[in-house]
Amino acid sequence: MPGTIAQRLHIDYPILLAPMAGEAARAPLVAAVSNAGGLGMLGAGYMSPDKLLATIAEIRTLTARPFGVNLFVMEPAPRERSGVDAMAQALAAYHAELGIGAPALPASLEENYHQQMDAVLSAGVPAFSFTFGVPTAQQMDALKAGGACVMGTATTVDEAVELERRGVDLVVAQGAEAGGHRGTFLGAAFEDAMIGTMALVPQVVDAVRLPVVAAGGIADRRGVRAARALGASAVSVGTAFLTTIESAVSDAYKLALTGPGGRVSGVTRVFSGRPARGVRNRYMDEMQAFEASAPAYPVTNALTRDMRQAASRQGRAEFLSLWAGQAAPLARNWSVAQLMEELREGVGQSDLA
Amino acid sequence: MPGTIAQRLHIDYPILLAPMAGEAARAPLVAAVSNAGGLGMLGAGYMSPDKLLATIAEIRTLTARPFGVNLFVMEPAPRERSGVDAMAQALAAYHAELGIGAPALPASLEENYHQQMDAVLSAGVPAFSFTFGVPTAQQMDALKAGGACVMGTATTVDEAVELERRGVDLVVAQGAEAGGHRGTFLGAAFEDAMIGTMALVPQVVDAVRLPVVAAGGIADRRGVRAARALGASAVSVGTAFLTTIESAVSDAYKLALTGPGGRVSGVTRVFSGRPARGVRNRYMDEMQAFEASAPAYPVTNALTRDMRQAASRQGRAEFLSLWAGQAAPLARNWSVAQLMEELREGVGQSDLA
Repeated sequence: MPGTIAQRLHIDYPILLAPMAGEAARAPLVAAVSNAGGLGMLGAGYMSPDKLLATIAEIRTLTARPFGVNLFVMEPAPRERSGVDAMAQALAAYHAELGIGAPALPASLEENYHQQMDAVLSAGVPAFSFTFGVPTAQQMDALKAGGACVMGTATTVDEAVELERRGVDLVVAQGAEAGGHRGTFLGAAFEDAMIGTMALVPQVVDAVRLPVVAAGGIADRRGVRAARALGASAVSVGTAFLTTIESAVSDAYKLALTGPGGRVSGVTRVFSGRPARGVRNRYMDEMQAFEASAPAYPVTNALTRDMRQAASRQGRAEFLSLWAGQAAPLARNWSVAQLMEELREGVGQSDLA
Repeated sequence: MPGTIAQRLHIDYPILLAPMAGEAARAPLVAAVSNAGGLGMLGAGYMSPDKLLATIAEIRTLTARPFGVNLFVMEPAPRERSGVDAMAQALAAYHAELGIGAPALPASLEENYHQQMDAVLSAGVPAFSFTFGVPTAQQMDALKAGGACVMGTATTVDEAVELERRGVDLVVAQGAEAGGHRGTFLGAAFEDAMIGTMALVPQVVDAVRLPVVAAGGIADRRGVRAARALGASAVSVGTAFLTTIESAVSDAYKLALTGPGGRVSGVTRVFSGRPARGVRNRYMDEMQAFEASAPAYPVTNALTRDMRQAASRQGRAEFLSLWAGQAAPLARNWSVAQLMEELREGVGQSDLA
């Protein structure tokens, strides 16, 4: 792949919006990052194929510039029932506090990944990234045939090497600082795959021939400069965009990140059943006993959905999954344009397309 | 404090040897780093006052340049006995395998920190750093009156602010990538104080007026450049020096760090009773059940000492505490001069004294 990553992606600055699923996944934020010269990324993991297509269409009404979509790669499989009753029992008290009905597992736990992928392929997106697993060879070929730049998420050197072997165009090296779900997929224990960005990026750069996108702990020009010094060709920034004016997440969520509590985050399974980093709150602390026993993703994620949605409506940050990276205290209540201006200060002149 | 950190410390490059206690704590490595223009640091936490004085004297025969000493700040206190028998029972099998006598808790578990400090004060060192706690106000005054540049270790922003309040000259921001013992001392849960260097350094730089030394994940010029981009005035490098020719640690230890296994490290309490990062080996894996129940430092450290020493003599890396940071795979079997040449490539021209 000749030229800079910005040339490859047809963007002005090698700055990517980290794909964030859930209430952060809205067209205006994605389009605003693309319009400011970066690459907006839509975290579509929780979206139905119809919603995904509608959101992509909305992005296209808001920007003529490149953007991307991210999916969770999960094979449909029977889901475990063990642990569900104990978890539901523990959740009942929170449901009562929020004044909503008793916790229950919906019949459908997750969107079908293959149907989501078909939607992405039919829409023909300029960039595609994935996490939790790797698309099939056929899907990889179809993505590339459609002109997408394909990016995979690695939390270890071994995963980066595997992604290169599977044909991605770029590797996103997800450091331990990163907010939200860990991408670990190659059998490493999650704890062993908690490698800091400072250590992970240069090792991945040395191990693969592909350009590397650094993710985790980057929130201002200093982080961008540091990532570039480590050998990254681009950066992926999530939390700092979460608190921008264009971000649709609740004020309760934004305040939790930039307040003094934002300094303390942890990696937890009690919201979704899969390790993810978020700001510590009452739910995380009180549910610590379920850290090991919470049913695996997507079961716990489905079980806690009603609580999280009610908490969002009621502005109760203590029950929200406050996904955020360790640089959350550096986030500001800026516009996307202001944040992009800050971040691009960290990009060397020679790397501007 | 006017001028650069190198001017303040009277060194050529703002590159510090991370203080490493145990078999790495030898005069030749410390002196070699100082002679190469950095600041050699002696990890003296396990040394008797006599040994400490003798080692400082030896350093002074090997270099006329500044160096420093690091101590574990631990108030003498009664030690818990609970959990000791279970731990000793588990260790017995390893002792048998190594052909040494049954595990036993020695009468004296640790060196007396106040006696160590008296030795440091009587020797009059150019630099002093500490971890696990904070010296008394009287000790801080005495250190400074003796001309020492005093550095404290912080793993969180709150700890950095506390160290500034207590009068240190420099703050060492220890990122989660760092090898060996975590410095966490201000009541945060160890897991919550595992903040990656990329996220920790700029937050500490913003929070204190003092110069900040970045530690954790830095092993080559790229790491030095990145740390400087984050706002660090200097870097502290440990693991990369551990594998140098001048380092006295066993070949078994060096090979474990730079071999493929070096990619997988974890933070464990089963060697010392206090969380520390090391390369995963058989002992760490098999003793995982004791992760929570191992008696607190220094009890477990004293209990495992015979095993570790026998393993070192016999070249059995599977029983060694292979303390190492997450950048271990970047370490090379270089001379100290070669490594210093690599690291100083990461220092900007404007910062050379």
